[in-house]
Amino acid sequence: MTQARYDFASDNTAGACPEALEALIAANSGFTAGYGSDGVTKKAADAVRARLDADVDVRFVASGTAANAIACAALCRPFEAILAHEHAHICTDETGAPGYFGQGLGLIPLPGASGRVDPDALRAAIARPDVSHHQSAAALSITNVTEYGTVYSVDAVRALTDQARAAGMGVHFDGARLANAAAAGFDLKALKTLNLDILVMGGTKAGAPLSEAVVLFNPALSRRFDARLKQAGQLPSKARFLSSPWLGLLKDDALVRRSAHANAMARKLAAGMPFRLNHPVEASAVFVDMDETTLTRLHAKGWFVYRFLDGSVRFMCSWATNAEAVEELLEVLKSLR
Amino acid sequence: MTQARYDFASDNTAGACPEALEALIAANSGFTAGYGSDGVTKKAADAVRARLDADVDVRFVASGTAANAIACAALCRPFEAILAHEHAHICTDETGAPGYFGQGLGLIPLPGASGRVDPDALRAAIARPDVSHHQSAAALSITNVTEYGTVYSVDAVRALTDQARAAGMGVHFDGARLANAAAAGFDLKALKTLNLDILVMGGTKAGAPLSEAVVLFNPALSRRFDARLKQAGQLPSKARFLSSPWLGLLKDDALVRRSAHANAMARKLAAGMPFRLNHPVEASAVFVDMDETTLTRLHAKGWFVYRFLDGSVRFMCSWATNAEAVEELLEVLKSLR
Amino acid sequence: MTQARYDFASDNTAGACPEALEALIAANSGFTAGYGSDGVTKKAADAVRARLDADVDVRFVASGTAANAIACAALCRPFEAILAHEHAHICTDETGAPGYFGQGLGLIPLPGASGRVDPDALRAAIARPDVSHHQSAAALSITNVTEYGTVYSVDAVRALTDQARAAGMGVHFDGARLANAAAAGFDLKALKTLNLDILVMGGTKAGAPLSEAVVLFNPALSRRFDARLKQAGQLPSKARFLSSPWLGLLKDDALVRRSAHANAMARKLAAGMPFRLNHPVEASAVFVDMDETTLTRLHAKGWFVYRFLDGSVRFMCSWATNAEAVEELLEVLKSLR
Amino acid sequence: MTQARYDFASDNTAGACPEALEALIAANSGFTAGYGSDGVTKKAADAVRARLDADVDVRFVASGTAANAIACAALCRPFEAILAHEHAHICTDETGAPGYFGQGLGLIPLPGASGRVDPDALRAAIARPDVSHHQSAAALSITNVTEYGTVYSVDAVRALTDQARAAGMGVHFDGARLANAAAAGFDLKALKTLNLDILVMGGTKAGAPLSEAVVLFNPALSRRFDARLKQAGQLPSKARFLSSPWLGLLKDDALVRRSAHANAMARKLAAGMPFRLNHPVEASAVFVDMDETTLTRLHAKGWFVYRFLDGSVRFMCSWATNAEAVEELLEVLKSLR
Repeated sequence: MTQARYDFASDNTAGACPEALEALIAANSGFTAGYGSDGVTKKAADAVRARLDADVDVRFVASGTAANAIACAALCRPFEAILAHEHAHICTDETGAPGYFGQGLGLIPLPGASGRVDPDALRAAIARPDVSHHQSAAALSITNVTEYGTVYSVDAVRALTDQARAAGMGVHFDGARLANAAAAGFDLKALKTLNLDILVMGGTKAGAPLSEAVVLFNPALSRRFDARLKQAGQLPSKARFLSSPWLGLLKDDALVRRSAHANAMARKLAAGMPFRLNHPVEASAVFVDMDETTLTRLHAKGWFVYRFLDGSVRFMCSWATNAEAVEELLEVLKSLR
Repeated sequence: MTQARYDFASDNTAGACPEALEALIAANSGFTAGYGSDGVTKKAADAVRARLDADVDVRFVASGTAANAIACAALCRPFEAILAHEHAHICTDETGAPGYFGQGLGLIPLPGASGRVDPDALRAAIARPDVSHHQSAAALSITNVTEYGTVYSVDAVRALTDQARAAGMGVHFDGARLANAAAAGFDLKALKTLNLDILVMGGTKAGAPLSEAVVLFNPALSRRFDARLKQAGQLPSKARFLSSPWLGLLKDDALVRRSAHANAMARKLAAGMPFRLNHPVEASAVFVDMDETTLTRLHAKGWFVYRFLDGSVRFMCSWATNAEAVEELLEVLKSLR
Repeated sequence: MTQARYDFASDNTAGACPEALEALIAANSGFTAGYGSDGVTKKAADAVRARLDADVDVRFVASGTAANAIACAALCRPFEAILAHEHAHICTDETGAPGYFGQGLGLIPLPGASGRVDPDALRAAIARPDVSHHQSAAALSITNVTEYGTVYSVDAVRALTDQARAAGMGVHFDGARLANAAAAGFDLKALKTLNLDILVMGGTKAGAPLSEAVVLFNPALSRRFDARLKQAGQLPSKARFLSSPWLGLLKDDALVRRSAHANAMARKLAAGMPFRLNHPVEASAVFVDMDETTLTRLHAKGWFVYRFLDGSVRFMCSWATNAEAVEELLEVLKSLR
Repeated sequence: MTQARYDFASDNTAGACPEALEALIAANSGFTAGYGSDGVTKKAADAVRARLDADVDVRFVASGTAANAIACAALCRPFEAILAHEHAHICTDETGAPGYFGQGLGLIPLPGASGRVDPDALRAAIARPDVSHHQSAAALSITNVTEYGTVYSVDAVRALTDQARAAGMGVHFDGARLANAAAAGFDLKALKTLNLDILVMGGTKAGAPLSEAVVLFNPALSRRFDARLKQAGQLPSKARFLSSPWLGLLKDDALVRRSAHANAMARKLAAGMPFRLNHPVEASAVFVDMDETTLTRLHAKGWFVYRFLDGSVRFMCSWATNAEAVEELLEVLKSLR
């Protein structure tokens, strides 16, 4: 009888990495001001600014879904829409949160191979006439690492955000797995050159217990942003518990080092994978071609993984994935061929 | 030169109590399912059910503001309103979150001494004609411990919720400081007899790092409640970090024991208080009559506390308040007379 | 030099038919109660009830977009979705109004030939697992006459609404062109057998100056429906100007007689049409296969018509279309071959 | 047995004045473009521009409630608030429409005698600290004629709007009875000097069947305003039926002439009134001190009027009020003393 194995089900099935947890524990003592005005939170914001080499406002929230939805609502009025990859998390996996936080704002899905927005499709979408009977685009949302584990280069992002800017649109950057992109070579200090408005920088998937950094590149968004967060239930009273993990993650760049491990585990898994890879393995995810019978047998052996919108089965690595588990999984997978 | 003292500014200026933090640390190891389907979260929900002696659905969310707002939205359509004490947190201190989550739902403020809704005022509000030009009441919201540190008895709550039920209305119970009420004698096992729909049971102020339990007494609310939470950004992927603290808080009733300490510290502070008390001290807060000059001098000495809507200055105790600090504060206060 | 001709651009390019306008003029004299409690509005509601042979609540609103969006919001919470044909007006042509009025409620597009929902596609959609990461379906929306001018039979509607009911879902019926369906044989008295919740019955396209009847088949929706309308800006103070045209339209069934004329004009147009018909001509619209160059030439001759989502060019007839204009248009079209 | 008399219940109990109705009838013939791009609507917008002597965008909508709510939503984000007189229509009589259209935006009530905002109260409200736990003010809403039938002078409005502008706030002007203000001496051509963002100029109460003009003084609001209206159900397809009445109302200034009659009738009623006047009679309304028994007797005699929030009973005149009815009413009122 096999036990349930969630190792590869997602990168949110792991706990917190030691650096994050220790920083949280260290931040626990004593009394502090609330709602993000405490010293720990200030230091954590400083650390994010230093890591991005950018003079930006930084907030820490509990939920990536909320962070993305708040970002969308900040950039797009209800009678407008956000351009995003058709399989972006905001389009497919957040129960309509952008429309909820943004009172019905629209999402315009764009195609593109392996989760990357096709620049020509973006061009065509931007060129659509701005008529009052549709929700016309007000902003572009880019996800890096993409939903299919591929990584945009800085230049590839710029090719998209330049288009958006030229059209007078805002830009949201969903960085739920930005740390994995960084580990794959994406320069975090280049973000400030990309004309972003809001970045959601993932802590949860990178090893925090539960925390996302909301980074405001556009200073016009800062006014009353705390009121926006408070109203949306994302201005935590005991903010230090969301901010402190970042002190651990950003000390000696544990964030990227831990993500580099996740990426390496994905490469190791891909290297031994007995099923066809459906997408390039550029970060921490491996997407394979697997029929339903085989997936059922894999589940029956206790290994939980998900089938994705493109039909692939996804194996996701994290800071906590260990090499033995990869080998163990590969043995099981080989037995299913 | 004095250092900033936040000891009495709020009960969210404290860290997590040892039981909560240790339970969180213990829950960190290994891989688990996400979004609340993990074993730790199930055990924590069981513990809440056992403590309330009620067969209820339980979820854990990061924000009391969001929990209250989601509850309001679940009980009240946009063209309806929630009846609540005029100084209730949802009315005064949540940046309009109920209206944001509930697309403009109304709040009908009710008077009442020391934060308790006046039953006659409720009666009058319920009796108002239901006309289409106003938002008519759909639900009642009760807060216990109240905003002014007083505690409703079970019968006093029942006198209000019976009225609401008889009028066909729903009931929301804001229990941000329910643990302090329990420590003051409010029987948590009586909640199930009060015809509540939703209880928000506070963990944060009681010693969790950041967690509120949402308790669904009305089973009709359970359908798609996770979708409701997900859309609202309150279905955490790494749910164990919000649920595990409850395992510590509910083991040997640390929740109530720690709150009893907070209440005792408030009584100690009240006993020595050189300023007039504006409200009965029944739980963890002490509200006093203090002029602006004196408050400024207190701030100048490094002790941060807030002036409230009724004009009082509030001193709030928590699980972390220590007796020496109370004495130290009393010395300072005496020096200001 | 040709003058702009809007005769076939839409059925909202016509004015009001004599019966409707005369009834409006007749209703103008004297003082009446406001907000729909006047005698004219009561008589108009009676007339709708009589025409539908159903004991239903009826309201009159100024906008079909608002009526549909209010209906969707009444049947579907924000974390749920409405099933509708992928080219239904609510999905494609209302600037996201359902999501605006319903705070982000979702729309799940269904395929189907010539604007009719494919029953198998509905079955598959209903069978999708109800997971918290998506907006699951709460209601079905049916449009008759469809966007492509085809007409569901009563049985064809029932085959869909029975599925919805069996799945516990609500049903919205968009009858913007219900009069044209009636003229094509759809029995309005059968509507009450179809398990609908809300019908929006079009007056505007049928010859009213500006009016849609909202018909509540589900009595549970009646409570506070006027408050819902008032909040949504659809409870007119001078209601008689929206209701009175229905007295004219329903006297001697002018509504259906005028629509029968529109349908006959469409058949006449189709009969002489020198371009391929893309959809069956069952009511007042003719959809043809026409390349962009030809359409541009048609526009240049002063005849305005629209290209639709399926690529067809649409010619729409109304109560006001006259036979000479059809012949004139056919001459022009023939000259473009 | 007396018949119901609605003459003085409101100014929306009257029908349309001849000029408005005749213009509507004249606009009925022929086919036109839809959604406000027709020639009649363009001429009506020109007429509004000419009357205001201002280069502004003008739209025509069916509902004052919707127009005000859309204006509020255009000027105020959900986590912000609108400053308005505590008895302003948007605060008391629109079922929370601003919060519905604006996803929970707040309303901050301001005091002031006889419906006029007290400039000192506005000053105090503007001076309140901008904290993230409350909805801070983003705009001011002014109503002229006020809810209590008093009229702001141009300078009195300016004293308020100057404050708002200096604080960086927007300004909404609710002109549901602007025509009555004009008839009382308020110069419509001075509006353009008052730094307004949006004016809602009432047609309905002034003698239109059902129409309000939305006037955009701030050109930044024009972008995608039609999409905003469409999504909100206020971009009518047969726009000519909302715009054409303005051609009649603005020809030879019938709008103001008809309103001058309403004002004169109110003065006549006030002159003979046997009850104490509670507010200055400056436009078309007379507010009197009347106990409940007397009001009940008045109702029993068939005359319907309303008690207002300040406790007064209101008698409202309109373009349709005739002198004989005033005399008849006065006789009845005298019999009740």
